[in-house]
Amino acid sequence: MQSVTCQLSVSLDGFVAGPNQSLENPLGEGGMRLHEWAFSNASWRAQHGLDGGEHNADSEVLEGAMQGVGAYIMGRKMFGGGDGPWQQDWKGWWGEDPPYHAPVFVLSHHPREPLPMQGGTTFTFVNDGIASALEQARAAAGDQDVAIAGGAQTVQQYLAAGLLDELHLHLVPIILGAGERLLVDVGNPLLQPVQVIASPTVTHVKYRVLR
Amino acid sequence: MQSVTCQLSVSLDGFVAGPNQSLENPLGEGGMRLHEWAFSNASWRAQHGLDGGEHNADSEVLEGAMQGVGAYIMGRKMFGGGDGPWQQDWKGWWGEDPPYHAPVFVLSHHPREPLPMQGGTTFTFVNDGIASALEQARAAAGDQDVAIAGGAQTVQQYLAAGLLDELHLHLVPIILGAGERLLVDVGNPLLQPVQVIASPTVTHVKYRVLR
Repeated sequence: MQSVTCQLSVSLDGFVAGPNQSLENPLGEGGMRLHEWAFSNASWRAQHGLDGGEHNADSEVLEGAMQGVGAYIMGRKMFGGGDGPWQQDWKGWWGEDPPYHAPVFVLSHHPREPLPMQGGTTFTFVNDGIASALEQARAAAGDQDVAIAGGAQTVQQYLAAGLLDELHLHLVPIILGAGERLLVDVGNPLLQPVQVIASPTVTHVKYRVLR
Repeated sequence: MQSVTCQLSVSLDGFVAGPNQSLENPLGEGGMRLHEWAFSNASWRAQHGLDGGEHNADSEVLEGAMQGVGAYIMGRKMFGGGDGPWQQDWKGWWGEDPPYHAPVFVLSHHPREPLPMQGGTTFTFVNDGIASALEQARAAAGDQDVAIAGGAQTVQQYLAAGLLDELHLHLVPIILGAGERLLVDVGNPLLQPVQVIASPTVTHVKYRVLR
């Protein structure tokens, strides 16, 4: 059955990005620390076209999270390029071969033609809301899952609307102190932990969102 | 070796109590939901002089957390009785036989004579700061651990001062949306997950605070 999933690295104090996010530093101050566990990993490196890396509990979790995803949804800020009408030369943070290798639906208030990239990623810009983006992503994903890639506000909207089936949190034992919080304005969803995998650095908890 | 420990139930969005805490509702709105997993448990019930309850992963965690504690420290708000000089008839929330069964040092700005209770609990009121309370608790605990019982502000102070060795979080999959946050104003401690125990309802992660 097709699920709507989301996996995110979150600090122990609940932030998915540090303070003072900018185009130069999209993860905010200290935000890179949230992802260090992934960068050194074989699964993450393979997804990003890099050799090497470690094989361990973390890489298994990453691999599992990437498998079976047929389409992605992300917010405008995660795609980047600043506010307002699109500058056509902005094609995301990820270069010519983005690590998605699948259709990606980008929420935006500004129209833009679809942007096919190398490696199977096509960015399609959706101007009529999260339900429409999900409908398009579901159709594109076929019998595979739809993953909400981020950022925080996009995840919040899908969670608050009752449209998320699974929230997979990578609990990174750092304190950012400030930044962008994940779990605000999400209502009162009922969550059930269905899988917990502990590595020496990160605790991975997969929650099912109950209806 | 004697450790300074702390175990707390925390919501997925980081709160250890709900909003609008009061003398009538010290856990705040919805805050009781943080502790439901414990109330039904054999270990918790035994500590509170009650029969029955479930034996499961949660009760093992609770039992482990209670073992080896020779003294407790808590904040004034957790002991209760309101602000200002002590009303002598207030003896805490827990009745004549509090569930500590050990010396408890209560941080306060107001002097009060020690208060011996039934079952081995004695409340000693400390007016000269957290370091003094810890020194007294360490001496009282002998070779056993000192547990910071709460509330959030007291834990924050010990964590920020680098005086906490172990933080044991019971991650309860609920969203409180507002209330008293645990991990604010604690600086940038380095934490290492050293034990993760998953139950169907709660994920228990024990962190060591690295120096």
